[in-house]
Amino acid sequence: MKNVMCVIEYIGTDYCGFQVQKNGVSVAAKIEEAIYAATGQTVKVTGSGRTDAGVHALGQVINFFIDTSLPIDKMPVVLNRYLPQDIRVLSAREVDEDFNARKSAKRKTYIYRMDTSEIQGVFEVNRSMYVGKALNVDNMCKAAETLIGEHDFKAFMASGSQVTNTLRTVYSVAVSVKRNIVTFEICGNGFLYNMVRIIVGTLIDIGLGRKSVDTISKMILTGNRRIGGNTAKACGLYLKKVEYK
Amino acid sequence: MKNVMCVIEYIGTDYCGFQVQKNGVSVAAKIEEAIYAATGQTVKVTGSGRTDAGVHALGQVINFFIDTSLPIDKMPVVLNRYLPQDIRVLSAREVDEDFNARKSAKRKTYIYRMDTSEIQGVFEVNRSMYVGKALNVDNMCKAAETLIGEHDFKAFMASGSQVTNTLRTVYSVAVSVKRNIVTFEICGNGFLYNMVRIIVGTLIDIGLGRKSVDTISKMILTGNRRIGGNTAKACGLYLKKVEYK
Repeated sequence: MKNVMCVIEYIGTDYCGFQVQKNGVSVAAKIEEAIYAATGQTVKVTGSGRTDAGVHALGQVINFFIDTSLPIDKMPVVLNRYLPQDIRVLSAREVDEDFNARKSAKRKTYIYRMDTSEIQGVFEVNRSMYVGKALNVDNMCKAAETLIGEHDFKAFMASGSQVTNTLRTVYSVAVSVKRNIVTFEICGNGFLYNMVRIIVGTLIDIGLGRKSVDTISKMILTGNRRIGGNTAKACGLYLKKVEYK
Repeated sequence: MKNVMCVIEYIGTDYCGFQVQKNGVSVAAKIEEAIYAATGQTVKVTGSGRTDAGVHALGQVINFFIDTSLPIDKMPVVLNRYLPQDIRVLSAREVDEDFNARKSAKRKTYIYRMDTSEIQGVFEVNRSMYVGKALNVDNMCKAAETLIGEHDFKAFMASGSQVTNTLRTVYSVAVSVKRNIVTFEICGNGFLYNMVRIIVGTLIDIGLGRKSVDTISKMILTGNRRIGGNTAKACGLYLKKVEYK
């Protein structure tokens, strides 16, 4: 039995999310089907975390236990033959038996793309959130910087989440602009349910001048979800990287 | 009667090309339908040129004659309501009655994107040609530079074209690299049928070391299509800009 870790990339648009669900086609189910088709083995894939319906990944990490003669370095090529074009295995390697893609994760980096064009670019449909107005990036930067450090992020958690420990550490944030696309990047030791999308929804309101620059720090201080902005749409969010050890 | 010029953007993947055809859904037909839905007027749209099935446009230019009370500056917003998400009108303005998007065009710029990644990126499907191997960009640059100037480009025309004057002027070329994407850009006074795709197919062979750097200049000199590479796929080609005056 080998414990195999893979880095995968996908477009989330046509999936109900990463995690296997009763209703809807998930990314994980597609990967499990490809592994079965390639090796005849029924495995359960563990992801570094769920991504919601419509959320993309540039570097999601998974692991699974498998008993196969298929050389691990051949796995990307072979599995990609059985996967739809919007899911790719980028790399595969054998890891220690105690490695778990979710529990062993130390840092995650997400990016969120916002389209400020007056008219939504055709190539941006389902690849960014259409804002359609100029954003004050300086103010967004100032607000985003207050996220850095260890804080109680309970004001940035979707209601209904079962998580009780809402302390998380944000290592870095960045807001950059290229043509009409504003990109927010955030790296932390873990993220609460919808945390990045609530941060971005609030940053957009700050960028549009609808909320003051200190809104984020007030949310951290008070724990009050209601003073923040809406949860930004899934289609702008990308899981960029997951780091271990 | 007003002569209206619009700049439009589209993803060519789901269309039989720009031009109206008996079989298949064209970009022009979609625009004519949107104009009819918005104004009740049946118009014939003229494009700066055809783009083939699967070819994209960042700045295709069209014109049409219309008798409408709809203010021209409102046209992009109104037409976009009736257009599918993969076609957008970016701008509209009234032009002289003798302006013709095809005949008045002075310069066109195309770009062609090549994916050299070992594993095709999910976001590159239908957005670039998958080459899957490293390209020698220096050699591609050297070969591409020989295109500049006025030449007889008959070796770069698809068979079956009715065009007899195959003299064209190339003003500039560029080959650039960003991560795993190699982009070729070319500006000229006009292009023969499949000319850019035959150039790119030949450049890819040069980049892969399958053809010598002087292949392009030999093709120009001899007019021999057969010494060139294959016609590169439509999905990597973008009509970037059309210039007038």
